[in-house]
Amino acid sequence: MFHVDGDVVATTDTMVHGPDFRLAWSSPFQLGWKAAATNLSDVAAMGGTPRALLVALAAPADTTLSFLERLADGFREACAALSPECAVLGGDLAVSDRFTIAVTALGSVSGAPVTRSGARPGDVIAVAGDLGLAGAGIELLFSRGVDADGVPDRAAAAALRPEFDRELDAQLSPRPPIAAGLAAARVGATAMIDLSDGLVKDAGRVARASGVQFVLNQAALAEFSRASLEHQLYGGEDHALLATFPAAVELPAPFRPVGRVLAGTGISLDGNLLYGRGWDPYAGWDGKLG
Amino acid sequence: MFHVDGDVVATTDTMVHGPDFRLAWSSPFQLGWKAAATNLSDVAAMGGTPRALLVALAAPADTTLSFLERLADGFREACAALSPECAVLGGDLAVSDRFTIAVTALGSVSGAPVTRSGARPGDVIAVAGDLGLAGAGIELLFSRGVDADGVPDRAAAAALRPEFDRELDAQLSPRPPIAAGLAAARVGATAMIDLSDGLVKDAGRVARASGVQFVLNQAALAEFSRASLEHQLYGGEDHALLATFPAAVELPAPFRPVGRVLAGTGISLDGNLLYGRGWDPYAGWDGKLG
Repeated sequence: MFHVDGDVVATTDTMVHGPDFRLAWSSPFQLGWKAAATNLSDVAAMGGTPRALLVALAAPADTTLSFLERLADGFREACAALSPECAVLGGDLAVSDRFTIAVTALGSVSGAPVTRSGARPGDVIAVAGDLGLAGAGIELLFSRGVDADGVPDRAAAAALRPEFDRELDAQLSPRPPIAAGLAAARVGATAMIDLSDGLVKDAGRVARASGVQFVLNQAALAEFSRASLEHQLYGGEDHALLATFPAAVELPAPFRPVGRVLAGTGISLDGNLLYGRGWDPYAGWDGKLG
Repeated sequence: MFHVDGDVVATTDTMVHGPDFRLAWSSPFQLGWKAAATNLSDVAAMGGTPRALLVALAAPADTTLSFLERLADGFREACAALSPECAVLGGDLAVSDRFTIAVTALGSVSGAPVTRSGARPGDVIAVAGDLGLAGAGIELLFSRGVDADGVPDRAAAAALRPEFDRELDAQLSPRPPIAAGLAAARVGATAMIDLSDGLVKDAGRVARASGVQFVLNQAALAEFSRASLEHQLYGGEDHALLATFPAAVELPAPFRPVGRVLAGTGISLDGNLLYGRGWDPYAGWDGKLG
């Protein structure tokens, strides 16, 4: 239970073993961490302060207690690190032959929540958090974190660590900038979204909901992260926050500008129209569990 | 989003195809209804007013749209019938070969929530809702709603309808008395619980948490419902509310007395000690999906 004087926002997201994670690549701690982080990020994207998580697990009957304890550690430590006002409030444990983690995150909002539909021509488009690294990480895992038959493999994934630590961490235990959501709301962000399906796809959703055109700037993206432009535009699971701000507003850290809002429709890179393809965990998943 | 001035309570519960439901026995409408009703009841048991449901579905890729629409109808109509201030606020749809329905219910509480630990010697134990009918229903389905190989069978279940409508409805589309939870809180209920695992098991939880003894009265139970004493005591999934009230309080409808709280420990029927066995969906489940 938690106290609220104002509005409660809530979001839910499910991770299913197979399309959403592989046990050869993710430790139980990382699974708990990621499940917490992605849901916290959805609350942050509404300008909310995360207050509570509810965790519904459906786990195979042979799941060990220590696996569940490490999973719980991941939830707890992600909350402590990313959003200290939030904790796991409760949960449910069921038996299923398909490991499933369904998380609901609750947040409180003082003032109006930030939606996807308020971006206005003249606004600055800005991003807080990583861009493209998580997408680079999953591509690395699928191409090089597998055995000779293409099955996810723990040792092959571990061998990638020295060179690609940041990409793997961005994919397996992301650190979305939760407090930046509230900071954006306070300075008057006009629209916001959690980047889970790729910049072009999610930015396109905001542009469509707001009835405006988004123009991304390639030079700004080049400075943004070491990921390739392809991963920045189309890689998924960044769990960065994209927000639009009136031009007069000083961007709250760690937001950095990536483009401008114009009248019109669609999304472009320096005037070249982009198409809304993005991350779909099912599109590339061949049924292997790992 | 919803507005709260006070405390927010939340609960989550998961239904997994196999141990928790069989598609030969439950229509998608009934599944949605039951998933809503059981979670609403958990909020009611805290003295809360249900305000929002979040529904995370993990469904096989070949699930039809009409199945999901009927499931959504069940959620919507259960809210409208049982708790009109509540509606489905959002959700998530993932693909899994094991159909899983994870629901989170949020409620608001004005004043202190009712917990399991406040029962005091001298209190009256009372129940609102059905007692034993849902347990009778699942026993009927397992014994007579199956084919010659013991597999859940739609036609065999349908044949039970004329004679056992109340038992089947109590099991497949329960109608817990949601408003009774708030009414109990208002008149000063000292403890409350949703009866999901059987009267003896759940009442025992309250007795233990409160550090008191519960004495159930067989004559009162005999008047309570047409279910057998065995089903009343040990049948699960009633989703009735059990609450304790100071003796001077006039019980709010539809609560009826079933026993008294004494100093001591344990739970008895007219002085004969009862043991905490109760409903466990996994104990009797042999892995058949139905």
